[in-house]
This record gives sequence, C-alpha cells and structure tokens, in this order.
Amino acid sequence: MRISDLSRRSGVPLPTIKFYLREGLLQSGVRTARNQARYEEEHLVRLRLIRIFTDIGGANLGSVRTILNAINDPYLPLHDLCTVVHRTLYTEQPVTEDAPGMSEEQASVDKYIDALAWRVAPDAPGRAALASVMTSLHGFGWDCDVNIFAPYAEVADRLACQEIEFISPDATRAEAAATVVIGTILFETALVAMRRLAQEHYSCIRFGFDAEQSRTA
Amino acid sequence: MRISDLSRRSGVPLPTIKFYLREGLLQSGVRTARNQARYEEEHLVRLRLIRIFTDIGGANLGSVRTILNAINDPYLPLHDLCTVVHRTLYTEQPVTEDAPGMSEEQASVDKYIDALAWRVAPDAPGRAALASVMTSLHGFGWDCDVNIFAPYAEVADRLACQEIEFISPDATRAEAAATVVIGTILFETALVAMRRLAQEHYSCIRFGFDAEQSRTA
Repeated sequence: MRISDLSRRSGVPLPTIKFYLREGLLQSGVRTARNQARYEEEHLVRLRLIRIFTDIGGANLGSVRTILNAINDPYLPLHDLCTVVHRTLYTEQPVTEDAPGMSEEQASVDKYIDALAWRVAPDAPGRAALASVMTSLHGFGWDCDVNIFAPYAEVADRLACQEIEFISPDATRAEAAATVVIGTILFETALVAMRRLAQEHYSCIRFGFDAEQSRTA
Repeated sequence: MRISDLSRRSGVPLPTIKFYLREGLLQSGVRTARNQARYEEEHLVRLRLIRIFTDIGGANLGSVRTILNAINDPYLPLHDLCTVVHRTLYTEQPVTEDAPGMSEEQASVDKYIDALAWRVAPDAPGRAALASVMTSLHGFGWDCDVNIFAPYAEVADRLACQEIEFISPDATRAEAAATVVIGTILFETALVAMRRLAQEHYSCIRFGFDAEQSRTA
C-alpha cells in the first residue's frame, strides 16, 4: 500500500508517519519510484503498536524505541520483554521515593510480596509504587497495614494468570511478544476504565441525586 | 509548625511549597513575624493531597486546582466530586478518538455498559477509553467482541462496590471527599502495580529461566 493508505487505515496523520520514518521507529517501505514507496501489513501493525505506546501507554519516543527494540530482539526471552515493558511504562509515571518513612513501608510491602510467593525482581518498580501508596495513606492518617492491598492482590493474581495463559503455546515469538505488550498496556487501560466506571455507578447509587432525595425526604 | 517543618514532614522541598503558596494551591499560614508564618496540620494534609495528584495521578497544576476547588466546594455533591476527579484524571491520559471504526466500537461498548446496568453518564470518559482499546485490539487482528472485557468488569464491580461502601456514613463531607479522591487515585495505583507484579510472576513461571531450561532439556 502507499503511505497515504497507511495513514488512512491507521488514522495516523501523514506528517506523523514521516516523522516516525525519519526517527527510524518505522522501517522504510520498498522504494517503487523516486518519490514513492510500498508499505506492507507489518508497517500497519508496527504503526498501531507505536500509537498504543504513545496514546494509551503515554510513552515518550525514547521509551517507544526501547520497547520496539526489545520486541525486535529475537534473543531476548519473553520474560525479559515483559520486564522491559513494565519498567519502561513506570519511567513515565514517576513515583516519589524521598518521602520520610518510605524505607519502612518498602520493607513491609516486600514482606507482603514474599508472602504471596510471587517471583518478582527485587527492583520491580511495582514494589516502590505500593510503598509510595502506603506512605501516602499513612500521611493522611489512615491506620492500615499492607493487608489493605489484599483484595487488589487477589484480583491481580487471577487476571494476570489468565492473561499469561492466554498466549498460545503455538504463537511465534513475534506474536507472543505483541500479545505480551498489547495485553499489558491495553488491558490495563480497560481495567482502569472499568474500575472508574464502576466507581461512578456505586457513587451514583450512594451519593447521587436519588440517594440525596431519599435522605432529605 | 514553621514552613521548614512542613517541608521536613511532607518531604516536599521548600521552594516547591513556596511555589504552591504563590499559586494559591496551598492556603497561607498565619503570620507570626515579618518573615514567618505558622502552619497547621491541615496544611500538611493539603500538601500531601497535592503531591498525590501530581506525583501519583500525574496531574498538571490546572487539574490540581480543579480537583482542590471541587473538594473545597461544600455544595458540590460527593457524586459530582467523584465525576470531576475521573474526568480530570482522564484529561491527563488522552485517548485517540479519531481512529477509523471508532463509533461502531463505541456503540458496542455503550451497549455492554447498559447491559451491566451501571449508572454512568453518557460522556463518562471510561466509555471512550474502552472503545479505544477495542479499536486497537481489532487493529491488531484480534477477533474478539466486548465480552473480552467481562473479567475486568466483574473485578471492577466488586472492587468499586467495596471502595464506595468503605466511606463511613458518619464521615464529614471533607473526610468523605478526601476518601473519594484518595481511594480513586491511590488504590488505582495499587491495583495497577499489583497486576504488573502478578504478570511478572506468571511470565516468570511460563517464560522465565527455569521454564526455558525445562523446555530445551
């Protein structure tokens, strides 16, 4: 297909596609004339992947490059790809680590993760994120310990197990890699959206107009 | 306490606190001398709230102001506060809406939400986020319909119900408001962190070093 078709089918504006080509994020098409090149389905897939990173994952170009390189490296084990994606996404969402009392919170979070027997690296950024949440809760005077995370851990365990199982054993490395990346980012977005919608629903039931009316009646 | 104590206890640098004071995000302390003012516990709470928005929620100053104004408005129903927080957080995470086929995806997502009987506004941004995820999945050739979101909807329903129930009926408006905001942002961070950690765990079991070894043995 021509570059204009690539733009039409992906919904990505032409100047943006040209920018990705110049930056080497998108591989060049096969030249067919002096000012024309042919693009394949794989260009479209790649372009959609870049947009997922930038639009949905909120990644900057450096992070996109890091993830694309990891996907393209045939020798990188899938588990390491998963780790690269997580770490790259977290650099986009900085977590304060200098708050007072943080190291104690970190210790109790780490103990909690150990008790779950989850095999996660000691420097997995999710650990620091949880410690930061706990620090904030205590800062607001909430008298709680790490067990307040239990419902989230239980749900996460079940979802993640399904998600990793979902990858077909017959998938090629490229397919499995795409599924890992898509699954991580897209279903995270879906999960967050669903939770916010459900919160709006229960907030409406408890605090909405009808609830207000019946309280004051 | 003095401004230096405020900085020490919150972990927020002095120049940042002064910036928040100048911007009116943090109310001024009571002047005790020409160059000194006294700050109360409520300043500390407010400061921590601002940091949650900026560091964890990724909000810019305009969004922080919007949320703080909503919290401070005693006439704004709690349900509307919840809506303001969700909408403000979503402006930080723009969702592509111009992708081809988006309106069909939106229609099927809306039908799905209707079937759940969730009371959410027609313009709730979570709807567009889900449609955008579905558009991306189809763009990658996934042959799925909205039912792929079912495990996420189920989990979200359960968590959100607990979260809204968690707010004590005896809470003052200010306390309930803080809980809505903290609950939305902090436990979203916790949920996302837990899911990523659990993914790392199951990815390790399935694709990690031990799994690789046993496959090639």
